[in-house]
Amino acid sequence: MEHYLDNSATTIVSRNAADKAYRIMTEVYGNPSSLHMKGLEAERELNLARRSVAKALGAGTDEVFFTSGGTEANNTALFGASAAKKRRGKKIVISAVEHSSITEAAKVLESEGFEVIRISPKSDGCVYPEQFEAVVDEDTILVSVMYVNNETGAVMPVDKIFETARKRSKNVICHSDAVQAFGKLPVNVNRLKADLLSVSAHKVHAPKGCGALYVRKGVRLIPHQYGGEQEKGFRPGTEALPLICAFAAACDEFEIDKNYKFVAELNSYARQKLSEIDAVVINSPDNALPYVLNFSAGKVRSETMLHFLEEAEIYVSSGSACAKGKPSHVLSAMGLSKDRADSALRISFSKYNCKEDIDELCKWVSKGICVLAHR
Amino acid sequence: MEHYLDNSATTIVSRNAADKAYRIMTEVYGNPSSLHMKGLEAERELNLARRSVAKALGAGTDEVFFTSGGTEANNTALFGASAAKKRRGKKIVISAVEHSSITEAAKVLESEGFEVIRISPKSDGCVYPEQFEAVVDEDTILVSVMYVNNETGAVMPVDKIFETARKRSKNVICHSDAVQAFGKLPVNVNRLKADLLSVSAHKVHAPKGCGALYVRKGVRLIPHQYGGEQEKGFRPGTEALPLICAFAAACDEFEIDKNYKFVAELNSYARQKLSEIDAVVINSPDNALPYVLNFSAGKVRSETMLHFLEEAEIYVSSGSACAKGKPSHVLSAMGLSKDRADSALRISFSKYNCKEDIDELCKWVSKGICVLAHR
Repeated sequence: MEHYLDNSATTIVSRNAADKAYRIMTEVYGNPSSLHMKGLEAERELNLARRSVAKALGAGTDEVFFTSGGTEANNTALFGASAAKKRRGKKIVISAVEHSSITEAAKVLESEGFEVIRISPKSDGCVYPEQFEAVVDEDTILVSVMYVNNETGAVMPVDKIFETARKRSKNVICHSDAVQAFGKLPVNVNRLKADLLSVSAHKVHAPKGCGALYVRKGVRLIPHQYGGEQEKGFRPGTEALPLICAFAAACDEFEIDKNYKFVAELNSYARQKLSEIDAVVINSPDNALPYVLNFSAGKVRSETMLHFLEEAEIYVSSGSACAKGKPSHVLSAMGLSKDRADSALRISFSKYNCKEDIDELCKWVSKGICVLAHR
Repeated sequence: MEHYLDNSATTIVSRNAADKAYRIMTEVYGNPSSLHMKGLEAERELNLARRSVAKALGAGTDEVFFTSGGTEANNTALFGASAAKKRRGKKIVISAVEHSSITEAAKVLESEGFEVIRISPKSDGCVYPEQFEAVVDEDTILVSVMYVNNETGAVMPVDKIFETARKRSKNVICHSDAVQAFGKLPVNVNRLKADLLSVSAHKVHAPKGCGALYVRKGVRLIPHQYGGEQEKGFRPGTEALPLICAFAAACDEFEIDKNYKFVAELNSYARQKLSEIDAVVINSPDNALPYVLNFSAGKVRSETMLHFLEEAEIYVSSGSACAKGKPSHVLSAMGLSKDRADSALRISFSKYNCKEDIDELCKWVSKGICVLAHR
């Protein structure tokens, strides 16, 4: 029996979402831009899908732009906002624990003459408004802070950070990468006070290859892709309709409160069981999102333990999947010792997990600590 | 009964391709970047898919980069090549009948200081090597010419154009948008002498939201998207595995010669039947790709006829779907009269069409010319 505890890396596609994609591929196969009925039928599905995703974000339907995923949404936010505002200022402020699609885009902007300030997290993995108060000024055009960190589950006070940033700069555009929060916390763009916000389909039981960027009405961005009239010309290219509709189907299935409660129970069960293992220390802050639990297991290197666990069909992660095993910039930014960072593992839950997954995990982590420490 | 004659806009997803996508969504759902077995299993599928697409292009597997579609592939080619070569020269030469994802990207490059030369087609809709000989010089860093035009089916002599361009400039990168040729003609990157070549999945009975850019080994491009290590860091973002594998499944089903012969017969049947209608003139050149047939029907405006035909479940296009009914820049570049361009219709075939589709089309076009001319 498989114990998939790597839902922050990606999730299984729900039956409804997969069925929807299949139906679109084989029946509603028209091009949404075609003027005939096959096109209109496809366009109707696109509109319905946009409504579902917008609803899940508390956004207007005309504020949601579909992308090929979280990376493209994040890139479009950073490149688009900085290009639109470049005559107003040159400073961009991000947290030091953003996803690589933010940090790498920021490096490119730096090489183009923007000044990028990276705010280090406190030991709980969070960044705080007062840290932004100290650096945001009238030259600041963009603040980008993730809502939930992908490695630790740390929940950032983005609404307060954005409030602070806006007090300090009238030109600032506030972006949040909400990829790890969407479908898990109620992500409401107004409550979060975000101008831009990125989400991804494959983290919420929809297929890989789709995401969305929320752009608040009135916020002007320079597009990142050029071509036809799709997505109001802001993000051209024939719409990935099977994926977009599957994404919407997954959003329609959100039961945020119910699943949160369920996962919170799993999380505290896991914390308790893991803490019974001598060599285990928890790295996630106490108030982290319960969907993510980062811990270090003795002095066994993350990858060694990961491969030991996979023998028992237990699938966990060493840091972020996108980094493919590189040392975590998140844990080092939090000030974890090298030993502890090198043995860090991330488990991440979905509604499909159960206590047995945790029992098996703990059993095999214990075994692993014994067996692997003596190798 | 439905008569879908708009296969250049998009195609139905083949059963095999849709089934493959479904299986990936619900079974092989791991993240190809994850280090555990669920990840490796996904990575294996990704590698197999890349091999299939590379084989269909006559390319090496390490020369194929998956994108979100033809638009992204074209954008990446233009922005990536011009950024990589900007210190070597400033001139970019394209045909005047490229897809909007090329023409719009070229406009952006123009605004950034590049000089863009647009080669007008001859009356047959084609551009020719001697036209490039006259304008390509040592300052030219990029030539981009589509292989098959999406509105007329005109087949461009890209190999000879690229040969000519290379003789005139040692710094030139040669790109071809082969979206409308792929799966219909044998697209071989070596025979075409292309450095870069774009293809799209949804034109070859695979889902919307996926494409690929061929990048010849040794040709350096600046990426258009930044983030993780996917696609060797050149095109980061979790790979759209369900789509990519479906794309590969569709490529595995290519029967280029057989389908070409079949469609060529349909095309000549259609030309013959249409020519029996008094007011019809064919706009596609005689030697166009048989998959596309552009004609003008009396003085009935394209959109009026299109909607008349859809009542009989006959689906055709007025120009390119991406342009959503705007006047065709392709037909005007070919020098067609306004009347003729305004009444132009495009039919485009796939292996799933039959003679009955054409009989119905001709019957209703005739009717339309009578009925609509008297309104």
